[in-house]
Amino acid sequence: MPLLVMKFGGTSVATLDRIRRAAKRVGVEVANGYDVIVIVSAMSGKTNELVGWVRETSPMFDAREYDAVVSSGEQVTAGLMALTLQEMDVPARSWQGWQVPVKTTSAHSAARIEDILTENINGKFAEGMRVAVVAGFQGVSPEGRTTTLGRGGSDTTAVAFAAAFGAERCDIYTDVDGVYTTDPRISSKARKLDKIAFEEMLELASLGAKVLQTRSVELAMRYKVKLRVLSSFDEQTDTSGTLVCDEEEIMESNVVSGVAYSRDEAKMTLISVADRPGIAAAIFGPLSEAGVNVDMIVQNISEEGRTDMTFSCPTEDVLRAENAMATAKAGGHINYHDLVADTDVAKVSVVGIGMRSHAGVAAKMFGALNSEGINIKVITTSEIKISVLIDRKYMELAVQALHDVFELHKSP
Amino acid sequence: MPLLVMKFGGTSVATLDRIRRAAKRVGVEVANGYDVIVIVSAMSGKTNELVGWVRETSPMFDAREYDAVVSSGEQVTAGLMALTLQEMDVPARSWQGWQVPVKTTSAHSAARIEDILTENINGKFAEGMRVAVVAGFQGVSPEGRTTTLGRGGSDTTAVAFAAAFGAERCDIYTDVDGVYTTDPRISSKARKLDKIAFEEMLELASLGAKVLQTRSVELAMRYKVKLRVLSSFDEQTDTSGTLVCDEEEIMESNVVSGVAYSRDEAKMTLISVADRPGIAAAIFGPLSEAGVNVDMIVQNISEEGRTDMTFSCPTEDVLRAENAMATAKAGGHINYHDLVADTDVAKVSVVGIGMRSHAGVAAKMFGALNSEGINIKVITTSEIKISVLIDRKYMELAVQALHDVFELHKSP
Repeated sequence: MPLLVMKFGGTSVATLDRIRRAAKRVGVEVANGYDVIVIVSAMSGKTNELVGWVRETSPMFDAREYDAVVSSGEQVTAGLMALTLQEMDVPARSWQGWQVPVKTTSAHSAARIEDILTENINGKFAEGMRVAVVAGFQGVSPEGRTTTLGRGGSDTTAVAFAAAFGAERCDIYTDVDGVYTTDPRISSKARKLDKIAFEEMLELASLGAKVLQTRSVELAMRYKVKLRVLSSFDEQTDTSGTLVCDEEEIMESNVVSGVAYSRDEAKMTLISVADRPGIAAAIFGPLSEAGVNVDMIVQNISEEGRTDMTFSCPTEDVLRAENAMATAKAGGHINYHDLVADTDVAKVSVVGIGMRSHAGVAAKMFGALNSEGINIKVITTSEIKISVLIDRKYMELAVQALHDVFELHKSP
Repeated sequence: MPLLVMKFGGTSVATLDRIRRAAKRVGVEVANGYDVIVIVSAMSGKTNELVGWVRETSPMFDAREYDAVVSSGEQVTAGLMALTLQEMDVPARSWQGWQVPVKTTSAHSAARIEDILTENINGKFAEGMRVAVVAGFQGVSPEGRTTTLGRGGSDTTAVAFAAAFGAERCDIYTDVDGVYTTDPRISSKARKLDKIAFEEMLELASLGAKVLQTRSVELAMRYKVKLRVLSSFDEQTDTSGTLVCDEEEIMESNVVSGVAYSRDEAKMTLISVADRPGIAAAIFGPLSEAGVNVDMIVQNISEEGRTDMTFSCPTEDVLRAENAMATAKAGGHINYHDLVADTDVAKVSVVGIGMRSHAGVAAKMFGALNSEGINIKVITTSEIKISVLIDRKYMELAVQALHDVFELHKSP
């Protein structure tokens, strides 16, 4: 029988009523002739409660115990969802990570899936089970302990199951009805995309469009899993939501598909660094070791053997970055005059696979920002993305201006 | 190293603060040189919440899913307790039923422990772990699914671990400070017992003294596990709580150790049953099949081939008993004139291993009840127990009178 993976996030299973609503959707697909693997998150708020207890008990907690505690949330939803389906006369049972098993690394609280054994679940499908309800976000380590994949990991579970079981599609039910050209809270002209390419989604996900977890998109791209993002609160039609797919499947698209932003960025500038071969490694090695997530890097033109080095990172990493640089300076590994942190910046990006074949996107972007009097502090580009760092107060304005200039409100 | 099992019930781990208090007690025993296996219940109220969700979702629930959901409560406490101990620098880790493993039957929601493999936990003790925190009340079925032992099952888990690991003692921490001669809410003269024999505790437990689960006492008796019941809210001393032990270890005891009662009893009388050989089996077979928990049985003297048959059962079984009898009558298996249910009765019992060697206990008991004008409806006796059924309104009075006449307020 053809197989679907359906994933329901925390808000979609927040109450027994919502679980029932989700189960009804699963029932429709079963009636359509599909076997279904349902991946569930914890009831919304539950994971935060459990994490809160762990942190209060032990600020520097043992991640193995954290996983033992936190994984219980998905376990509860999985059981309740299986019971709900049974009440609808759909043969279903729940599975925890260790029962499937979902084999992961031992990196507790941030484990990676290494293998999903399909034998147990396929055996039950062969016996007549129509729905396997799997607790998302969890697996089992080589040592036989429960692991979790990190926050948002249920998306990754869903895509990994779709890949392992060769599912026809992986439907991600969430509280938004798809992927938009930009955040509708910032631009009222934001338009839902019917389709988006994996590469674009990946850029959007990592740029702060919180619809899908980055790792799940990477995985879907690698294994060519068709992903659909749709709302569990809407009536569904065949064109509901947004299909994330291979770019070959997208016939028509705008040059730019979306405008993303990230508010929590900081711009760090090392002033008057003694320039020499290997200086970049001497700076960014210690930052990486300190866990600083460096994003953009710009090196100014060197004069008289000294240069300014600018990089961006999440606001929460600023303190760690300052400490790492101070330590490296004290150790004589680097030499700089000053380190200036500007935490009043935001990142705005335009993303689109169409950029590959269209020149002039950057010029158009910079022109639009200039018309609004917005000063660009740092620029980085990739094949399908241009990002700029600007003053945070201009962020909304920049997003709106770029959405307009690339005419994203119009369908391609 | 010598080993202790310490079990903390739901009220003893109801909040993070109480978990900390419980962990401190564990720390004391570790400092005393013990390795410790801690058995935890779910935080108080949690199991009821989970059971409520299951029942609301599916009134005739699949017990396998019930177990998957409900077992999560103990899992959370186990993780939090392990983290708390680690914060106190006590090497500890949590274990779920499937990880130990605790092998049980497949009778979901009422499973029985078949085997506890000691290898994994003992291996960790050998590596320096001092405390294994085990989620109580749960195990794993031969099919690899999580099972639960039924309500109160954490006591049974604790005793089974003490037996499997050869623990020096099994300490049950609860919200009362021991086993009393009777319910202190009914008699202000109730006295805490320092020691009580397994057989006595078993009679008291099954008679409604809710301190310990009956199965756990049976198990302790069979495997000679010394049990101590004590309060997690008191300062502990060497003589704290009540030791439940072999009767050989009790040097001095009163003839009667305690007075127990049970409020929810019903007296059922089959009037004018056609008497013939095998009539008892024809009555009590169907009752047993209908799940009626028959306790006392009295058959009146037969006259002219007809007899009255009286039995007692829990109030909640009355309807089932009536249906079972009506069906048996309709099927021609038994013949009776009427079935009269008296649901306004209570059972009061005196229990004591001293009865074996002392005559006159029954006479003294009946005399005391008679002096108070209390009519006895049914009597049953065992080697160490005499139970009577009386009008419910006299229950408190009977308990107080019996406590007085056997001088239970005095130490032996």
